[in-house]
Amino acid sequence: MSVYTTVTQAELESWLAQYTLGQLVELKGIAAGITNTNYFVTTTQGRYVLTLFETLKLEELPYYLNLMSHLARHGVACPAPMADRSDRFVSLLAGKPACLVSCLSGADVAAPNPAQCRAVGVMMADMHLAGDTYPARMANPRGPAWWSATAQVVYPHMDAADAAMLHEEVAFQSEHRFDALPTGVIHADLFRDNVMFDGETLTGFFDFYFAGVDTWLFDLAVCLNDWCIDLASGQNDSQRAEALLQAYQAVRPLRKAERMLLPAMLRAGALRFWISRLWDFHLPRDAAMLVPHDPTHFERVLRERQAWPLKL
Amino acid sequence: MSVYTTVTQAELESWLAQYTLGQLVELKGIAAGITNTNYFVTTTQGRYVLTLFETLKLEELPYYLNLMSHLARHGVACPAPMADRSDRFVSLLAGKPACLVSCLSGADVAAPNPAQCRAVGVMMADMHLAGDTYPARMANPRGPAWWSATAQVVYPHMDAADAAMLHEEVAFQSEHRFDALPTGVIHADLFRDNVMFDGETLTGFFDFYFAGVDTWLFDLAVCLNDWCIDLASGQNDSQRAEALLQAYQAVRPLRKAERMLLPAMLRAGALRFWISRLWDFHLPRDAAMLVPHDPTHFERVLRERQAWPLKL
Repeated sequence: MSVYTTVTQAELESWLAQYTLGQLVELKGIAAGITNTNYFVTTTQGRYVLTLFETLKLEELPYYLNLMSHLARHGVACPAPMADRSDRFVSLLAGKPACLVSCLSGADVAAPNPAQCRAVGVMMADMHLAGDTYPARMANPRGPAWWSATAQVVYPHMDAADAAMLHEEVAFQSEHRFDALPTGVIHADLFRDNVMFDGETLTGFFDFYFAGVDTWLFDLAVCLNDWCIDLASGQNDSQRAEALLQAYQAVRPLRKAERMLLPAMLRAGALRFWISRLWDFHLPRDAAMLVPHDPTHFERVLRERQAWPLKL
Repeated sequence: MSVYTTVTQAELESWLAQYTLGQLVELKGIAAGITNTNYFVTTTQGRYVLTLFETLKLEELPYYLNLMSHLARHGVACPAPMADRSDRFVSLLAGKPACLVSCLSGADVAAPNPAQCRAVGVMMADMHLAGDTYPARMANPRGPAWWSATAQVVYPHMDAADAAMLHEEVAFQSEHRFDALPTGVIHADLFRDNVMFDGETLTGFFDFYFAGVDTWLFDLAVCLNDWCIDLASGQNDSQRAEALLQAYQAVRPLRKAERMLLPAMLRAGALRFWISRLWDFHLPRDAAMLVPHDPTHFERVLRERQAWPLKL
């Protein structure tokens, strides 16, 4: 369920008068997403997705919405935010910051094939290059400083063996310097449920609300850790991983330093999500709103990445 | 024929490397348009229209392309320009300023029905409102100063009766002050061949290269003079005119001053195109490139507008 804030037809009609998008035809809740409220909004002019932000603040949103607008006009498949008559992408609706974005066709893919992984690789590389001229700068808020601090908070809730493993991985990561790697705007959360496909045509990346500046390789590692993993075992799927990596490199070849550090970065990507899931699991912020993911999945992924680094 | 400048696959592939739009799949000339060279460009990522500008200069184009981008993100149906990796909408290709824009679906409509006129009215009003926050300012270059000067150039080529009629209309217009009317960015050339429809769904206005700031009423008059006119006789079609005007006013009601001045403005709209067609006809700039429209069409439209002003 992802309609936490209810919007009435009348409220929406009045809010829509700020836009040049025609008259409201239909308003329909979307049963996906776990953080925000989403609706399909059909007007006489087109079909849009309305998002009401449940935790992000009004002043935090222009970074993400301007980024999506920037990427969309560079041809990166993603929702294009719609501007209102005051040239804003976001304003209050039902007491929450709210925006309208163009509607992507298709659906997300639960079990991706190599062709779909190739499409993700190409589009991610294009996204990295296109983001290079995005002027606003914000560091990835879920980087090493965040995971080191958050690890301290979750240790007391873990059994000794798991806590030791977590401690060792945090130490391992702190011994690796990624400063020489190329950086830029990254999506930072490009899981299977944040990409739409129409058959094998990628129609859009979405949910950019973890985006920020970090190494491009980290984005790639997070993506490989979801798209090219067997979800039951946490094991690497080499066919899909090679498809995604080759496609990415056809647009932006990895530098030597990136190829060397990819095994360590895959561990960093697994660590970041293991920690956030441990945190959500042991310290839930709002039980009514979040159904925590199983943290043991990324523990398994991390073990696999530790035991058998991906060959390049 | 509208491929004046030939682009090879190899030239385009090299130019496309500046973009994040994937690999070239197909390049195909477009046999429409009279001023610029247009191609359909299909890449692995999508379908675009490539325009090579034959007369506009590189430094003149950002005004128009930024405007289209502004309107597109406000939901106005029009081609969205694609930015390259240097965040430019335009750069040189085959020696000409060139851009890529998103491809509109559908086709233009030779004989519009009232429903299509309604769609044009709604979208024009939305375009006027959305353009209000466009920051760049450029006066409509085909306003009263232009037509008064150009009339002087064409008088010697006209027979006495026509020249007298033109002289009287220029004088009539100079006696009307439109200064009190609301102004904004206008398309200024919204003829039937500059709008795409997919059935009765308007998919886009295009060819914004006459846009500039002028009274919104002038834009409406130019549009009524083409969409709501019987092309053979030049007579007003009241059913289509009412459909377009009502639809426009449902979004932006005309002020009293605008309603009063519409008959005079319809004459101004006819005058502007009568003069430019006289100019193209009597003083062709490049015989190979331009097939001049018949100037007598807008002379007929003007006579009709003089004799029987549209009732509101």
